[in-house]
Amino acid sequence: MDIFKVFEKRYSHKEGFLPDAVSLEDLKRIAEAGISAPSGVNRQSVRLVILPNRDAIAPVCAIAPTIGLETAPAAIAVLTDKTVTPSGEMNFEKEDYSAAVENMLLAATALGYVSLWLDSPYFDAKKEAAARAVLDAPETMRLWAVLPIGKPDGAGSRREKLPFDARVSVDKFHLNRL
Amino acid sequence: MDIFKVFEKRYSHKEGFLPDAVSLEDLKRIAEAGISAPSGVNRQSVRLVILPNRDAIAPVCAIAPTIGLETAPAAIAVLTDKTVTPSGEMNFEKEDYSAAVENMLLAATALGYVSLWLDSPYFDAKKEAAARAVLDAPETMRLWAVLPIGKPDGAGSRREKLPFDARVSVDKFHLNRL
Repeated sequence: MDIFKVFEKRYSHKEGFLPDAVSLEDLKRIAEAGISAPSGVNRQSVRLVILPNRDAIAPVCAIAPTIGLETAPAAIAVLTDKTVTPSGEMNFEKEDYSAAVENMLLAATALGYVSLWLDSPYFDAKKEAAARAVLDAPETMRLWAVLPIGKPDGAGSRREKLPFDARVSVDKFHLNRL
Repeated sequence: MDIFKVFEKRYSHKEGFLPDAVSLEDLKRIAEAGISAPSGVNRQSVRLVILPNRDAIAPVCAIAPTIGLETAPAAIAVLTDKTVTPSGEMNFEKEDYSAAVENMLLAATALGYVSLWLDSPYFDAKKEAAARAVLDAPETMRLWAVLPIGKPDGAGSRREKLPFDARVSVDKFHLNRL
């Protein structure tokens, strides 16, 4: 799919999913898109775990249930490897994982699925540790997000966005707040 | 361009640029891609300033010269509005700006340009403030990155990446470090 079409189509799917399976081939294409994102100092800190079916998702969902994880036929867990990222201003874990997530949301959209950047459950350190343990990921990893992926159950929609001129200016910054 | 082709083609261009102008129309398409990225709680914190020629770029470049900013015919400065983002764990400025940057790097690639996620000059608070002042952006904004955009002067290349299996596993996390 043309990339500009994908930018238009992508939206945050906050509803449930149909049970239709997502092929492992498609999940691998989405993951491949994720790891093709740039990373700070090319450290490639992002690690992904593909959860290709309900059996794999259920124990992750049990820790922090959401309608997305309760119904999605597939998901991808997004972690970073703390051993390859220093602390301080040269730590690019958030940038790295965010660019990888955006690529995966776009790739999923291009393949006809919907997804969601689901991060808030893992702000809680205990839930993050519990979900990471379910995935068998060691303490040297950090779990940032789990992206449910599948066909939408019901119509989702793109949330309302500010107009272009309220966010973009030319030459100099202009505060065009509405 | 098909999005999967764009994922393959995008790379971080760390060399110079040819002087060929980038049309304002293309720059606006790239900016539009940037602001179409998702944002935490849909707060849409990202603000962009299109620098469409050398006159606009030169004073920004003077603060922190790089080969990219010294030669690029166009650039886009990426800021966030601190007044719409709370502090603490619900602050998504890095996620917001990173997703917007990734979309813009992809859009630039799709339109036949190269670009670079140039953030390190603005880790320095004084340089960040100086560059922000050049853009006429108030203290309520934070400048994160400036993306030089144009045709490459000489061949750039994608940096070497770890193989898929070293970064992605299925069902459970596997540490396949090389």
